[in-house]
Amino acid sequence: MTAIAEPGDVCGGVSGAPVFDALWAELAPIGRTDSGGYRRLAWGSADLECRAWFERTAQARGMSVETDRNGNLWAWWGDPTGDDVLVVGSHLDSVPDGGAFDGPLGIVAAFAALDVLRAHGVEPTRPVAVVAFSDEEGARFGVACVGSRLATGVLMPDRARGLTDGDGVTLEAAMRAAGHAPGGIGPDPERLRRIGAFIELHIEQGRVPLAAADGRTVRGLIEAGVPVGVASSIHPHGRWRFDLAGRADHAGTTALSDRSDPMLHLATLVTEARAAASDADAVATVGKVIVHPNGVNAIPSSVTAWLDVRGASEAIVRSIVERVARAVGCEAVEESWTPIVEFAPALRDDVQEVLSRRFGHVPVMPTAAGHDAGILATAGVPAAMIFVRNPSGTSHSPAESATVEDRHAAVDALVDVIGAFTRR
Amino acid sequence: MTAIAEPGDVCGGVSGAPVFDALWAELAPIGRTDSGGYRRLAWGSADLECRAWFERTAQARGMSVETDRNGNLWAWWGDPTGDDVLVVGSHLDSVPDGGAFDGPLGIVAAFAALDVLRAHGVEPTRPVAVVAFSDEEGARFGVACVGSRLATGVLMPDRARGLTDGDGVTLEAAMRAAGHAPGGIGPDPERLRRIGAFIELHIEQGRVPLAAADGRTVRGLIEAGVPVGVASSIHPHGRWRFDLAGRADHAGTTALSDRSDPMLHLATLVTEARAAASDADAVATVGKVIVHPNGVNAIPSSVTAWLDVRGASEAIVRSIVERVARAVGCEAVEESWTPIVEFAPALRDDVQEVLSRRFGHVPVMPTAAGHDAGILATAGVPAAMIFVRNPSGTSHSPAESATVEDRHAAVDALVDVIGAFTRR
Repeated sequence: MTAIAEPGDVCGGVSGAPVFDALWAELAPIGRTDSGGYRRLAWGSADLECRAWFERTAQARGMSVETDRNGNLWAWWGDPTGDDVLVVGSHLDSVPDGGAFDGPLGIVAAFAALDVLRAHGVEPTRPVAVVAFSDEEGARFGVACVGSRLATGVLMPDRARGLTDGDGVTLEAAMRAAGHAPGGIGPDPERLRRIGAFIELHIEQGRVPLAAADGRTVRGLIEAGVPVGVASSIHPHGRWRFDLAGRADHAGTTALSDRSDPMLHLATLVTEARAAASDADAVATVGKVIVHPNGVNAIPSSVTAWLDVRGASEAIVRSIVERVARAVGCEAVEESWTPIVEFAPALRDDVQEVLSRRFGHVPVMPTAAGHDAGILATAGVPAAMIFVRNPSGTSHSPAESATVEDRHAAVDALVDVIGAFTRR
Repeated sequence: MTAIAEPGDVCGGVSGAPVFDALWAELAPIGRTDSGGYRRLAWGSADLECRAWFERTAQARGMSVETDRNGNLWAWWGDPTGDDVLVVGSHLDSVPDGGAFDGPLGIVAAFAALDVLRAHGVEPTRPVAVVAFSDEEGARFGVACVGSRLATGVLMPDRARGLTDGDGVTLEAAMRAAGHAPGGIGPDPERLRRIGAFIELHIEQGRVPLAAADGRTVRGLIEAGVPVGVASSIHPHGRWRFDLAGRADHAGTTALSDRSDPMLHLATLVTEARAAASDADAVATVGKVIVHPNGVNAIPSSVTAWLDVRGASEAIVRSIVERVARAVGCEAVEESWTPIVEFAPALRDDVQEVLSRRFGHVPVMPTAAGHDAGILATAGVPAAMIFVRNPSGTSHSPAESATVEDRHAAVDALVDVIGAFTRR
């Protein structure tokens, strides 16, 4: 598909660091919370400020900007109607109290990388686009990767429009309030067809076992001693709901033996999920719980708990869910299921080869987080991911981090990859 | 204080059943929910309908009605300014999805009993009042027995006015919206001083161990085979808050060993509280839990759980709380503490003696629920409680019940007690 340029012949003497730092400083105050984290929920005010920043940043570079039918933003270097487009980017929205890097790192690094390439007079042989996918986190409306799922047709427009946030606002109303017509959302096959490759650069999340340069298995890029890695696959994962039923009763006057207390079942569920995940070398999380009526002096009539499970294979994940359901004696209602995503090996090998010229050993690593790159890969678009070292291992949290050097390494990585993929 | 009349000389041949049934039918539709339970939250529309019913019911009987400074309703038979008043009644508000009997049974039975006494030409030797205390359940604003706590001075007016419901409405605003001036709430010593005795008749809650006629220990009035019992004491109880801290992180990408997941501490708390209460023959309940950020794909940054503990003594209750706090390694923040309430033995003996003439053996039983009678008793007002058999043992739930025969027995009980206490 794409020939790779010779190493070392692009932009060797120029740093994208100052541009990165300046753009990063512009984004830094938007949606920042008292904890030092970020709250940039899709189509909310902070997200709209980030989107405006994207448009200004592109326009300042003479790049044409468009918002596609699904609210995804595209900034073009080259012909916006051309084929075999090389797309780089990520997303701008965050979870509540999320970190600074999850999403924006891939977009800021892309703009900085393009500046470096242009400063050196590079004339790309194919169109290049920076993309900001809309509503990747799903933190507001409950479904992740809305922009890419709509484009690929795995999320139906009617269902998307009716998604509701915690205040009862529909996605349709939120899009309209933001000036985006929700009537046109839906599959966008013509656009997808023109994508030759999508490279999503993203902060590392968690510290997965991976092979270091000496062949030892270590945990995360921090132990491997390298600033970047490439993704092999995205673990399959699903979400299940447990409706734990009990009998409302008075907390003072009801003897223990007369109680049907669903809070006890929740305790069993949490404990068993942890044990089952540990036994299977997977992860299981109870992150959301709703208690009814949630009164201090009332035995709950019901507790609803959501279980998120991810592992190396579907069989592993499903065995955990079944074990938990048996332990609590309650049906597990499947609310979502995402099969394993294997990134195209040829594209991954190309990216790894380019990066290894600058960084030496570049680990190949799986991830258990969903990404727009995974949605596109599943739809047949050649996609790859580059991970940037996160010393804390933590994401979806203010503790998420990347050193200044590694942020600049992210720019270098995209300079190399875009440079290599746009020359013959 | 009060001489007791001879047995058998009051109203022997007349039943209060038809009046009770008619009044009960009037209340039945107010605030009824789809589950068959009731939602009559203080100062809400259903509560206001119940209050209007109280006023109509009193006026239809030629009884003068007043709303005191704290929103408690009083219907007078005799001189509203007199001393040594015999007060009967309870409350009209409910918990969310509560039962029909908790509160209203004591008020409807009181009105019906007065009808019986008047029908027989009884002329009371002291003023009699039917009371409906305001906001007993505390289900809306979080503090129970607001009307009696304000009157006795244990709840400060400023704090009460600032209490807030789940929608951010203050008690002050709710009272004002209902037409009651909140500026005048507060201690009412002159009114309390004039109460010679307060008898609160109430549905049985839970099935406590008590002595049956043959001396055996049985559980609840249903096993004792008797429709009424009298209260010995209210168990001490308290509420504690546990702020379980963790670290927000991505549910997919964070290895189990890297997690600080407060949901696991919640499981420990729930399990340990149950075990500790079971060991101590007490009750402990986790009825309210708030998870932050409560996202399906996020390890919680914090879980706040409330523990309600009640037992036969303060030492028992506190030992349970300490054991739970040790198990979870988290401070227990005391949000409320209510010492044991011992009802005045002399008044209790008088009530029991009167009731035993009609019902035979009348058990003396503790309760673990708070009541306005307990608040008044703590403030030095002579108070007693009569419990009416609840076959389900369940309260604060639509399953709360009393047979038609036992509802009428409640009327008979008050006819006997009021009759005995208002004659010389």
